[in-house]
Order: sequence, then structure tokens, then C-alpha cells
Amino acid sequence: MLVIMNRGASEAQISAVVEKIRAAGLTEHLSKGVERTIIGAIGEERKLEPEAFELLPGVEQALHIVKQYKIVAREWHPQDSVVDIRGIPLGGNSVQIIAGPCSVETQEQMDLAAAGVAAAGCRLMRGGAFKPRTSPYAFQGLGSKGLEYFRHAADKHNLPIVTELMDVRMLETFLEWDVDVIQIGTRNMQNFDLLKEVGRVNKPVILKRGMSATISEWLMAAEYIAAGGNHNIIFCERGVRSFETAYRNMLDVTAIPVLKRETHLPVIVDPSHAGGKAWLVPALSRAAVAAGADGLLVEMHPNPCEAWCDADQALTPQELQELVAVLRQIAGTLGRSLC
Amino acid sequence: MLVIMNRGASEAQISAVVEKIRAAGLTEHLSKGVERTIIGAIGEERKLEPEAFELLPGVEQALHIVKQYKIVAREWHPQDSVVDIRGIPLGGNSVQIIAGPCSVETQEQMDLAAAGVAAAGCRLMRGGAFKPRTSPYAFQGLGSKGLEYFRHAADKHNLPIVTELMDVRMLETFLEWDVDVIQIGTRNMQNFDLLKEVGRVNKPVILKRGMSATISEWLMAAEYIAAGGNHNIIFCERGVRSFETAYRNMLDVTAIPVLKRETHLPVIVDPSHAGGKAWLVPALSRAAVAAGADGLLVEMHPNPCEAWCDADQALTPQELQELVAVLRQIAGTLGRSLC
Amino acid sequence: MLVIMNRGASEAQISAVVEKIRAAGLTEHLSKGVERTIIGAIGEERKLEPEAFELLPGVEQALHIVKQYKIVAREWHPQDSVVDIRGIPLGGNSVQIIAGPCSVETQEQMDLAAAGVAAAGCRLMRGGAFKPRTSPYAFQGLGSKGLEYFRHAADKHNLPIVTELMDVRMLETFLEWDVDVIQIGTRNMQNFDLLKEVGRVNKPVILKRGMSATISEWLMAAEYIAAGGNHNIIFCERGVRSFETAYRNMLDVTAIPVLKRETHLPVIVDPSHAGGKAWLVPALSRAAVAAGADGLLVEMHPNPCEAWCDADQALTPQELQELVAVLRQIAGTLGRSLC
Amino acid sequence: MLVIMNRGASEAQISAVVEKIRAAGLTEHLSKGVERTIIGAIGEERKLEPEAFELLPGVEQALHIVKQYKIVAREWHPQDSVVDIRGIPLGGNSVQIIAGPCSVETQEQMDLAAAGVAAAGCRLMRGGAFKPRTSPYAFQGLGSKGLEYFRHAADKHNLPIVTELMDVRMLETFLEWDVDVIQIGTRNMQNFDLLKEVGRVNKPVILKRGMSATISEWLMAAEYIAAGGNHNIIFCERGVRSFETAYRNMLDVTAIPVLKRETHLPVIVDPSHAGGKAWLVPALSRAAVAAGADGLLVEMHPNPCEAWCDADQALTPQELQELVAVLRQIAGTLGRSLC
Repeated sequence: MLVIMNRGASEAQISAVVEKIRAAGLTEHLSKGVERTIIGAIGEERKLEPEAFELLPGVEQALHIVKQYKIVAREWHPQDSVVDIRGIPLGGNSVQIIAGPCSVETQEQMDLAAAGVAAAGCRLMRGGAFKPRTSPYAFQGLGSKGLEYFRHAADKHNLPIVTELMDVRMLETFLEWDVDVIQIGTRNMQNFDLLKEVGRVNKPVILKRGMSATISEWLMAAEYIAAGGNHNIIFCERGVRSFETAYRNMLDVTAIPVLKRETHLPVIVDPSHAGGKAWLVPALSRAAVAAGADGLLVEMHPNPCEAWCDADQALTPQELQELVAVLRQIAGTLGRSLC
Repeated sequence: MLVIMNRGASEAQISAVVEKIRAAGLTEHLSKGVERTIIGAIGEERKLEPEAFELLPGVEQALHIVKQYKIVAREWHPQDSVVDIRGIPLGGNSVQIIAGPCSVETQEQMDLAAAGVAAAGCRLMRGGAFKPRTSPYAFQGLGSKGLEYFRHAADKHNLPIVTELMDVRMLETFLEWDVDVIQIGTRNMQNFDLLKEVGRVNKPVILKRGMSATISEWLMAAEYIAAGGNHNIIFCERGVRSFETAYRNMLDVTAIPVLKRETHLPVIVDPSHAGGKAWLVPALSRAAVAAGADGLLVEMHPNPCEAWCDADQALTPQELQELVAVLRQIAGTLGRSLC
Repeated sequence: MLVIMNRGASEAQISAVVEKIRAAGLTEHLSKGVERTIIGAIGEERKLEPEAFELLPGVEQALHIVKQYKIVAREWHPQDSVVDIRGIPLGGNSVQIIAGPCSVETQEQMDLAAAGVAAAGCRLMRGGAFKPRTSPYAFQGLGSKGLEYFRHAADKHNLPIVTELMDVRMLETFLEWDVDVIQIGTRNMQNFDLLKEVGRVNKPVILKRGMSATISEWLMAAEYIAAGGNHNIIFCERGVRSFETAYRNMLDVTAIPVLKRETHLPVIVDPSHAGGKAWLVPALSRAAVAAGADGLLVEMHPNPCEAWCDADQALTPQELQELVAVLRQIAGTLGRSLC
Repeated sequence: MLVIMNRGASEAQISAVVEKIRAAGLTEHLSKGVERTIIGAIGEERKLEPEAFELLPGVEQALHIVKQYKIVAREWHPQDSVVDIRGIPLGGNSVQIIAGPCSVETQEQMDLAAAGVAAAGCRLMRGGAFKPRTSPYAFQGLGSKGLEYFRHAADKHNLPIVTELMDVRMLETFLEWDVDVIQIGTRNMQNFDLLKEVGRVNKPVILKRGMSATISEWLMAAEYIAAGGNHNIIFCERGVRSFETAYRNMLDVTAIPVLKRETHLPVIVDPSHAGGKAWLVPALSRAAVAAGADGLLVEMHPNPCEAWCDADQALTPQELQELVAVLRQIAGTLGRSLC
């Protein structure tokens, strides 16, 4: 950690900082500049909190030099990690498209959806049984019954299923239905109790980025899961909150290369929740794959006009098929294979 | 709801919209402008979703006219609501300062803190037993033991206690320790299962604003609690995420008068988490009370230099006392009383 | 325009709105819903200002239905516009890469840069003679001397030149050196006097997006130029301000398809100023072209380590060449040709 | 400046950084931590650019330790500066309310406005003759004729006038009409040529914050003016762009105490453009003064309903009078005097 003193900080103030560093079992290193003195703390600085120094008199700023995340950091694990989902690799050389409806509605809808996913050449399926809705008066998802429909529909095509867990108390049910990938939604990225619980199970986790989470906070949220023992984590960028009102969220395409540099774990993108409109999905999907994403989480509904939620952002099965064809070419350009 | 058609939308496209409105049991109202046709849906529009219309061909935009929140809306309840906390009124004419440390550390620390809160003339006490920390390696709070220390310390001064609930599974414990006000933190503002649970108990709830939640989403989150039957809700503005890096969060002082117009429920402000520095707390506290806030949630520690978390944002007991004196004068200027 | 009345607005309040609409020469259209009355203003609504209605008693909100921009709107000009730059088409089927250094430094540097641009197969060159710098103490550009170096270097390879105009008083000088494309920088997107001046000349203009300009404000800024008679406008997305600190600006890739739908004019992207780091440029460039951009504005320096400004965001000539090769393939995938 | 090396940076990489520091005439200071080496550059670091180091191999990050602004910094000028406006002090112990209409419309309107300003006890008057409007089709201000009306109206009450300069070419005209305070608007905060010009004249300048300018950029913009010799600078916070759509801009009340700590120059607030609605102005004005602002810039119109622009944000003369009375009390609470 570095402690930057104010211009004109007194010797006594400098000594107080030094003492505090020593009290924590670290060693100080002083550097006197023309205008300011800087004090480095040498040792395991992760246990020091900058705030504890910033309140000392004469201190301008204190900052960590080492990063707070470790298990998920590429710095400590240089090779790409590949998450294995019932034999399907996510990460590495392949690009995976996870498709399916926003919410599970009926057995018939899920059967049609699963057929559409498989027909488009996608190998993983998504669908929501528990839905986080802004309004308490909106459809909240079918719950366990939804998991049942989903499991049955997906099994016919041998598609692993991806679905969102919102409540720690439902984890048992998820394991009973053998959900293949547990999704942690945007609103729960810093629901730390939920992160700790999924950190204890042996299931891949898709961790969506919080509405306005920094990349660093997102990595720390993943570290919560990893610290519990579960290292099968997939980051999912889904657009962040911005001042722009012409579309729903601002897809942070820069987060893809930045994350790929910071972490060894795979990074996918949800173009549907980012743009919020089906007509935006092809352009955003192409951008994501071109920028190096390891996969996509795309909404597709057998009949978007009759979808129970987010109707305007789902692709039709036909549109999904066309999109996958283009994405395969772009992936190829980058030396990667899709599906 | 209003459906705005594209310039050049065909009659068939207009008819499709009309049909969909009728199918939902509402009545349409057409208005043909020079460039565009607008279709109003007359009836209980809260059950319509704009998205279901925006995917129809020829539709430019669909928007709700009525607000989605109802129980918390001033439109439906014009008088100010006052939340009663063991006889202490929050809202209405009085302004309440809730003070105490960021986290519960020891019985002694809490005893000193409680004495400081009472000495400053504050009537409610805050303190965290369960702490949402960005890093899994940081101190996570004392848990139930913390509630015990807190309860004992506060009872000596007859101070109702305010503390954060993060996990639905701990609600029983909160009720056992008879927590007087349950705080829902920023990261859980849209943890809908948690909101539903606190909506079922008979305890006042402080609902902090999400890191980048719009005022409308915040009102909807409160509506989740209210829809469960618990109308004792207090909004707490605590700064939002912004591009500015000179301080921690941007206190949205405008949210105070806007909320006071939109809802009949009380609105308080947390100046400590907003600014993130003790030296900013007095200015932000004065601004909040001057803007019409019904109270504050302020961090005070008997010995900030030794605080286990957020050390640099806690006031000393002495500083709290001085702040309260100034705030009392400002409240008086607005015809309100503090305490 | 639509005027939405409060629940419980009186007949007199409704009449006042109607009167104001009629006074402006438009016709009203009333629609009484279950909870609210909505009043439409039929006629040339562009001359009405919503604010003038929002201050009337009983009015909840007033909003424009038609868009404020017209010359630049695709609604009024459905086919893509192609901007001709000395015979080189920007827009339509081709994708153009405009490359060159951040700032003009010496004749030799520009000669090497021009050779690198041409060698990479790019057909347009960029370079800054007047630099907008955050600090008054930083290098401010060579000024007119820079235009001279630039012109000479580019002419050897027959490359049209693109350079930024900051001050209306320099327009004459730009015309004297026959600058081929005038760039309006981020900080001047709403420098309306500058926009009016470039609207009067017969030179293509690249209009960069303001640091936090909405797409609608950006279209209106272009309308300022277009209203003066100059319709040769190229939009340039360059990243917007956000809460994220892991990189410089957040590239708004969604703005590309949204703009392509709203305007008939070409849209290019500056991946260098967006990310702020050379290592981010390839990923962002690929994303931009994949999302449908009509071109890029890329920083390349013959020797980045010695660049006088923004050293860390310039590609080497070799890196540019490799990037162009990949972009050509991605453009091909979308049925477009690069260069 | 500090250069933080990557974990595992080689000796050769460290040497290259050291060499570059020495080449710039500074001295290095090495500090080897457990995980990383940090290199300090001792000397006049303002001339080094971090970017020039960040592109060197093995460098993680480079950062300035000293601040880039100097003339405007409190660090170099600890006492408060008071700007003298024809004998009226802005800054120090007094709080000044500058009031008047958004735009100059007619001589009669300005006469009424000036009378209202004086009657409310305000000592300075504002009004716009040149208006920055988002749309080219909106009223652009009366121009020089407006300055004439303004000057005449204000002189009757001996009120110094404050008005916005948008175009360097109009500076002469401003000096001819002897404008007392030149306002630089939000959209021109980084119009560096304009800043340089007003830096050369001997007139107080109000520098509004850019739509999403950081406090540091804002201080640097002021430094541009100060570097030209004009130190009579007043900062004006007017709300920043945010994700919130319930009101126009987010008033950054925290910027007030932060600026007061960073600079010795006065800080005022424009509550009218911040909130965008007249009913928000009193709450925001009270908050600003309570937070320590040295003054306000408030819109007042003799007849808001007939204002030519921003009609819904102007106070009536009566409302201004009431507001001033409350603000006088709040200022008194803080030991300051209003007017």
C-alpha cells in the first residue's frame, strides 16, 4: 500500500503512519519527493485498509498496489480456464451460444424453444423459472414448476440448462432438478450470502455484472464464489446503466478485453438484456464475438409476440439460426470455432 | 398506455394495435396527428406491458401514463405518513438523527457509542452486525453476537436499534432480538425475495437506494414491501454511482424533494456512505436537512481511528454533538423540530 | 405534442392547456382515460416547447412526439447517404479506416506516418495540429505549421487529410490548406457557433460525440451543421464518460445500430480515444466493424514510444497493417468491402 | 510521479523506466515490495505524462502525485479569495444571489426583471443574450441587442450584469457593453480557445461545470483562465448528467465542500438548470447554501408563463423574495451574511 502525504505534512504525522504500518506487521519505505512524501507498506498489504490511513492527519490519499482478487486473477493463473458443462467446453477456443426464452411459460412453449435452440446449432439452453421483476404486480415466474418444464424440454435434445437463482432457500430445489449452470442475476451480483452459497456447490455459475458494478467489484464478487471452493465461474456482461435513453442499457464491449486480461475465467455477453430490443441483438452479438467474448446468452422465443415478458427482445427461432451462421464466420476469422 | 405509431404506419398496423388493446379488455382511443397516429388504451393499464406493443410492426414507442406504484404514491395518499418507532415519530414535523458505528465490534465499543448517541440528543441508534463487504477477505460483521451487544448497549439509553438484514434466513434472529428498524442495504434494494419477507413482518423498514437505481425503481422496490402489508417504509438516499472520482458516491440531493412529491412516506439521508469521508459529513448533513429530509443516518464511532471498517467516515461523539446543534437550527428555519 | 394531465386536473386546467395549444395555431385532441386526461396538439409541433406547458397548473408532463431533427433523420431520407471525400466514398457498402498520429510533430514524423497509412491500405489520414488538452501546461499542437507538415506528407501518398478545428477564427486557415475533412471534437459537439460555421462551408465534417451527449443531442448537433447547408456529415462515436475506471471511456457500441436506424448519414468509431490504450484498439475496432460501423478513426504513430501525446494509445504501422487485415475479413462477412 | 511495475517485471524493464525518468531531468527512487516494484520520479513531475510510461513493457500503471493545477489550488494559496464585482464581494463571508431571466426578451421584460431582482434584495443580475440551444430551430437569443436591453435595465438599479459568452468573436462586444461578469457555459467548459481569451481580460468569469466534467477537469479549465493572468474566477455547479430521468440534471452538492477544500476561489450553484423545474429551486437553493456555497445563480422571470425559454424553471419575483428570506436565515446559521 502507498500512503501519499499532504504537502507540508509534519515529521510527527509521517511517524504516525509509519507506526501504524509497523503495528500491522509490515515494513515502511519512505520516499521524499520535492513536494510530498510517499510511504510504501511492504508486506501482505491485502489486510490493510486504505481508509484506516486516510483518516490520519497529514495523509492525502492511501491506495492499494496489489489487487484484492487473487483466485480469479490471471496474474496468478496465466492460462485460460475452460468451464466444463456436462462435457461442453465454455472458454478456450470454442464460442458457445446459450439460447432460450426469457421465462418458462408452458411445457409446449419450452418444447418448441428447445427444438429451436437445437435446430440453430446451439448446445446450451437458457430459461427463467424465477424472475426478478421491477414491479411486484408483474409475472414473477412459474417457480419449481418452471424448472420441471425446462428440464423435460431440454433433456429431449440433451441440452444442459442455465437458469437464475434468486433466493438461497431455493438452492436445494435447483440441485434436485439438477440445474446445470446456475445464473446469478444483475440485481444479485453483490448479494453476498447468495454468492457464498453457490461457492459451496459443484455447479458452474454465470455471474452477471451488476447494473453499475465496476469491473473490479465484479471480479471481487467472483472471488466470493471462488473463495468458497467453486472455481467454475463465467462472467456475463449485460450492459450497464448510463445516461442514454435511446436503448435500455449500454453494452460495455470494452469490458470483454479488459476482463480477458484480468482474469483467466471465461467471459460471455447477454446482448438481449443489453439492448432491450430484438432488432439490436444481431449487431450487439456480432460486436461481442468480434471483441473476443467466449459466448453469448441470447433470448429466443418460439413466438415472441406471445411471450409473457420482455416480448420485444426475443429473437424468433429463424432469426437465431441466421445469427448463429454469421457469428460462426466471425469466430472463424478470429481462429475460434462456434459450437 | 399510449402507443405512438411510426410515420407512415399502415391502417393494418394500427388495427393490430387496437385489437391487442381490446383483447386485454381495454378500450382504444385514436388520435391522428399530422405526422403520426397515437393510440391510447383506456382502462386498467397497469396490466399492460409496453414491450408487448413495441414489437408490433409500425409501433415507434409505447409508454405507461399511470405510475406503476400505488400504495406508496402520494397521488393515492396525499398526507404525509409518519412511521412510529417505539413511540418516536419519523416523518411529519420532526427530524430524526439516527447515529452509531458502521459495525458492531465489542460490547464496550457499543456502550460508548450508545452513550455518545444519547449525549448528542439523538433518539435512534444504528450499527451493523452483518456487513456487506466488497471483498470476501474483509471483516464480515459479528453476526448474531453483534445483535446481542447492540441490543444491550442501546437498551441502557432506551434507544431503538436500526440494523441491516442481508439474508432472508436471518429474519427470525432479527425478530428474536427485537430489532426495531430493519435496514435493507443498497446492494439488496432489488433483492425481491428479501423485500417480500420484510413486507410480511410488522417492523419499520429503511430501504436504501440501489447504487444506480432510478427513483422510479426505488419506489417500485418499496411497493414490493408495501404489497406484502407492511407500510412502515422509510426511504434512505445514500449517494449514487457517478463518473466523479473525487469522493465516493454522488449524494442525490434532488431526490429528496422529488420523493417527497411522489410518495407520502418519510425520506432520510445517509451522508456518511455518500461522501465516504468524515470531513464531508457536516456539509452533506446540512444540505440534506435544508432540502427537506426527514432525518439522517450518520456514522459515529467512539474512536474512529480504531474502527474496524470505514474508519475514515465516522464522526467522533463530539463532532456529532456539534453537528446536531447546527442541524437543529436549520430544521427550525424550516419550521421543523429536531429530536 | 402530448400533454398529460395530473389525476384530478380540473376542467379549467384542461381548458388552459387547450387555449395555449390553439394560441400557437395548432389543434387539440382530448382523450380522457380512467385516471388521467391526455391532450394531443395536432399541427407543426416542432415549434412548441414542452416546458411552456409543464409549468401550467394540473400538467404532469408534456412531451414531443415528432423528433426534433429532420434533415439528418432517416425518417425523411430512407436511403444511406455516402459522403464523398475527394472521390473516396465514406458510407454505403465500403468501410474506411482513417489512420494517423494523435498530433503532428515534425515533417519527418508525418512522412513516416503517411507512408505507414498508405502501406496498411488505408485511404484517409488523420493528425492533429490544434490539440484540445485538459492542462494548459501540456503541448497544445503545432498550429498552422502542423497543417503544412500534414498536407505535404499526405500529398505524397494522395491521402485526403482529416484534422480537428477548435476555433472559428482558424476556419480560413483550414480552407487555405485545403483540409479535406474537418473534425469537430468531443468538447465542441455543442459549440454551436463552430457548428454553424462549418455548416456554411463545402467540406465533409466528422462530428465526434460529446463526452456524455445523448444520441438525440448528437443528432441535433448534426442538424445545426445541416441547417446551414452542409449535409456531408459523419458521426464519430468515441466512447462516453462512465463510472468505470478500468479504462478511459466506455465505447458505446449500441450507438452504431441505433444511429444507423435514426439517420441516413455514415457512422464511424474512434477506438483509440475510447479505450485509451493501444492493446485495446484491435478488440474495439473489430467490435465496431462487426456492429456495422462505416469506418474507423485510428491512432497510429511511426514510433509510439516517442509520441508527444497519448503515446500509449497509438498502434505501430505494423500493428495497423495486421488490424486492417482482420477487419477486411469481418467486413467481408457482412458483405462489405474495406478500402 | 509513481510508476507501478507488473508482478514479475524484469530488471531490464525497471531500468528502462529509470532511464526515461532521468532523461526528463528527474531522479528515480525505487521501492521493492513483496509483489511489485514501485518507482518514484523525484523533481518537477508536472512535465511528465503518465501515458508515456504506461506504454513501456512491464509497467502496470503510472500516476501523478502532485496535482496538475497550481494557480487555482488552495494548496498554494490557503486563504479564501474574494472576487470583487464593482465593489460587491463574491466569496469570503458573504453569500450573493444572482437572479434574472434565462433570456433577454424585451426592454420591458428586463426592466420588470431588474426591479424584481432589486426588490428581492439581490445585488447582481443575470440574463442571456446569446443562448446555447440544443435545437437550431429554437430561439437563439437577441444577441447584441439583448446586451443593450440588459445594460439599460440593470443600470437603473445599479446591478452589475452577468451574461454568457459563447463565441470568442463576441468578446469585443461584451467589453463595449461593459459586461461585469462573463459566464462560460456548461457546453464551453473545455472550449479552450474561449478560456484563453477570457483569461486575458480583466473581468470576473463564472465558469460553469461541464455536463459530465470531473472536479479535476473543472479545476484544470479554471487553470487555463488563470494561466492567462485573470484570477477572478468563480466556479458554478449546475448539475451533472446522470442516469436519473425524474428531473433534468443531478445537482452535485458534494462538489461544494470538495471544491472549497481544493481551491481558494468562490463556488456558486445554479439550482434552476440543475433541477429544471421551478418547484425544485427552493429545496436545491437551501441545500446549496447549507452546504457552503458562496452564492446562487437563479432564474427569475417577471412572468414565467410567457418566458421565451425554460419557462418552467423560472421563479416569480414574489417566489424569489420568499426564497431569499429563508436563505438569509440559513446563511446566518453558518455565520455568513446574505447580501
